[in-house]
Amino acid sequence: MNIFKKAKNNQTSPEVEFIAETEDLPLDHVMSRFAEGEIAIFKNTLRNINPVGVGKGLKTKVNANIGSSPDFFDLETELKKLDAAIQAGADTIMDLSIGGDISYFRKKITAKSSVPLGTVPLYETAVEMTRNKKSIMDMTIKDFLNVVQKQAEEGVDFMTIHSGITLQSIESLKSQKRIIGITSRGGSILAEWMALNKKENPLYEYYDEILDILAEYNIVISLGDSLRPGAINDANDRGQVHEMILLGELARRARAKGVQAIIEGPGHVPLNMIADNIRLQKKLCDNAPYYVLGPLVTDIAPGYDHITSAIGGAIAASEGADFLCYVTPAEHLKLPDIEDVKEGVIASKIAAHAGDIVKLGHKAKKWDDNMSMARKKLDWEKMYSFSIDEDKARRVRSEMPSGDDSLCSMCGEFCAIKRNEMQ
Amino acid sequence: MNIFKKAKNNQTSPEVEFIAETEDLPLDHVMSRFAEGEIAIFKNTLRNINPVGVGKGLKTKVNANIGSSPDFFDLETELKKLDAAIQAGADTIMDLSIGGDISYFRKKITAKSSVPLGTVPLYETAVEMTRNKKSIMDMTIKDFLNVVQKQAEEGVDFMTIHSGITLQSIESLKSQKRIIGITSRGGSILAEWMALNKKENPLYEYYDEILDILAEYNIVISLGDSLRPGAINDANDRGQVHEMILLGELARRARAKGVQAIIEGPGHVPLNMIADNIRLQKKLCDNAPYYVLGPLVTDIAPGYDHITSAIGGAIAASEGADFLCYVTPAEHLKLPDIEDVKEGVIASKIAAHAGDIVKLGHKAKKWDDNMSMARKKLDWEKMYSFSIDEDKARRVRSEMPSGDDSLCSMCGEFCAIKRNEMQ
Repeated sequence: MNIFKKAKNNQTSPEVEFIAETEDLPLDHVMSRFAEGEIAIFKNTLRNINPVGVGKGLKTKVNANIGSSPDFFDLETELKKLDAAIQAGADTIMDLSIGGDISYFRKKITAKSSVPLGTVPLYETAVEMTRNKKSIMDMTIKDFLNVVQKQAEEGVDFMTIHSGITLQSIESLKSQKRIIGITSRGGSILAEWMALNKKENPLYEYYDEILDILAEYNIVISLGDSLRPGAINDANDRGQVHEMILLGELARRARAKGVQAIIEGPGHVPLNMIADNIRLQKKLCDNAPYYVLGPLVTDIAPGYDHITSAIGGAIAASEGADFLCYVTPAEHLKLPDIEDVKEGVIASKIAAHAGDIVKLGHKAKKWDDNMSMARKKLDWEKMYSFSIDEDKARRVRSEMPSGDDSLCSMCGEFCAIKRNEMQ
Repeated sequence: MNIFKKAKNNQTSPEVEFIAETEDLPLDHVMSRFAEGEIAIFKNTLRNINPVGVGKGLKTKVNANIGSSPDFFDLETELKKLDAAIQAGADTIMDLSIGGDISYFRKKITAKSSVPLGTVPLYETAVEMTRNKKSIMDMTIKDFLNVVQKQAEEGVDFMTIHSGITLQSIESLKSQKRIIGITSRGGSILAEWMALNKKENPLYEYYDEILDILAEYNIVISLGDSLRPGAINDANDRGQVHEMILLGELARRARAKGVQAIIEGPGHVPLNMIADNIRLQKKLCDNAPYYVLGPLVTDIAPGYDHITSAIGGAIAASEGADFLCYVTPAEHLKLPDIEDVKEGVIASKIAAHAGDIVKLGHKAKKWDDNMSMARKKLDWEKMYSFSIDEDKARRVRSEMPSGDDSLCSMCGEFCAIKRNEMQ
């Protein structure tokens, strides 16, 4: 019996106890929220890692996507991205490889990762079929379930499954004009499959079969938002909201079968629609944990989308989003490199913490208070140690030191804090 | 008669007409808001530049601070920062020099700047007195007024004047414990002056004399927030709000004397207090334009404070802040270099635009729509041209091109947009 089914039977587990302890919460709070599906705990039963939790009352977590593309597939680079992401503070990793021997890549990444690993099994299905000279348009549910089963046995902790894109939700999408139609890779494959085969989405039709595999390994289903907006203009439209309704129903079905569910969210969203989107998700999905990409608050800043996403992510977290998928400066332009991965994780961690100051209060804010007390004392070693990127803080200050060791070169002797001291 | 007094007499001016035209607003809207003090227009009567407006209904503007410090004073570097800031889109520049021959620096910067220039006259007063072997603690109002007069004649367009730090507002500050007391350079000097001299702030006592000079040259008074918070913990406290009340009164007095006034704001503010702060300012200051520094939504990210500020700035702008003062990645660590200035301006411009999508609707959003339409067509040249940093967008994509010229290396042949096209 997996830990989720146990919790529903009021039985605790080492994983739940670990979350309660590391998040500094009473065990019964975590237990009841976990059993209700408001907290998800990532850990494949076959994996030997510390579990990570997302959801109500927990710190906002950050996921970093790594993985090859058809244009660039070098295992060493991806393993270095993995290290860089974890070093920068990523709580989970998704391997989104779609180029090279992705099965081999994933095994290596899984073996090396100390944090939970997520995948999108549809990608491997597509890549494998292409390799076998078949079209993904001929995919059967068997092809897909085989990949899910294989990845489950390999120890994947959470999987994005695009079951919410259906004939009906596509109708809703088409009824309201978008600038960019479908921006989700998985969603675009399934929409084309449905159009060509004139059939319902097999990931929706055979949802129970998928759940049966996931339940066995305690894999969290991350219900993909195939119809997420890819443009500010397209946010919170009929297609997106219709899919969210379906994702709420699918999450309920998952829980009923002993599978933990989280909900994926956008994407490109204007600043003032983020709170609406988060509150709607919480209602429509019975408070299932919400996993958002960004959100990006403007479309006009390629090269800086870690910043457009940090803005949206901070607001989302403060309003109740539980889990942020990072966006790197390379988004919309190229596959991220190692430095992009680091920049993306840090921007997202800043957003998560800014949200947690609101969501968790003193528990989060004491980090800021510690930094500010060190600032007040002009204690630079302490300031470095409380910095989200200690090495960078140390390096930047040393690039242009003040003549006075206790100060920095911004104000020098005009330092307001030093002047306060003298009063 | 300056343009503000004219507007109050219902007389238009080329400056007001220029703002109406460039902001694409009916002249009578701009005229009435300008006359009411809800819009400020920067342009010293002696300067030959295009005016820039901030306030209700106008695009959110971005200011970049440049200037020397006691530890680093190289005119060429400051002139390069000026170029970098304007190139990146700064709408105004403040010269905050406090090291080297700051009077000479300012003349050179003023001569070279194509955008309005702001200063903090208290800095030159302090630097000049130190040069003459006197202490700033012996400053008289005459010393200060002489600097204001000199800078006015040189063409400075707006000046930060710290008239809101008074014996009373300091009492309020002391009545509620802070982690970091006063973080404003100007504020800390005046607080020390008041403590040592046991007298009221001369910039408050002789406020009318200051206004008389500013009125003559149409210099906008930027009412400094000496008691702005320097830590998340200290935001929206008694000292800060008491000073804001005084700034509202001082703004009214400025307008009555024919001086345009804007209000300066924080600083370090938790995400959920930003909207409260903006709405309070609008009420207490009769909708005077609000000029905020950041706000920074967490204290823990030195090296990344352009990001902590972009988060706060976007929220502030969306809630009605009119003018964002940038913060660079060097904040809290060193004097910014040229690259820091560029990074800071772009982060702030992103924040301003994200806010304008909310504040101005389609007028701002059409930029995003143009980008998204170019994305939909996979028209890379158009995407570059709509990018906030065209050079960077072009460079990043070329670092790792896709094998297919129409795509990028993120998804390659799995591009969702390309797949949409095929349906």
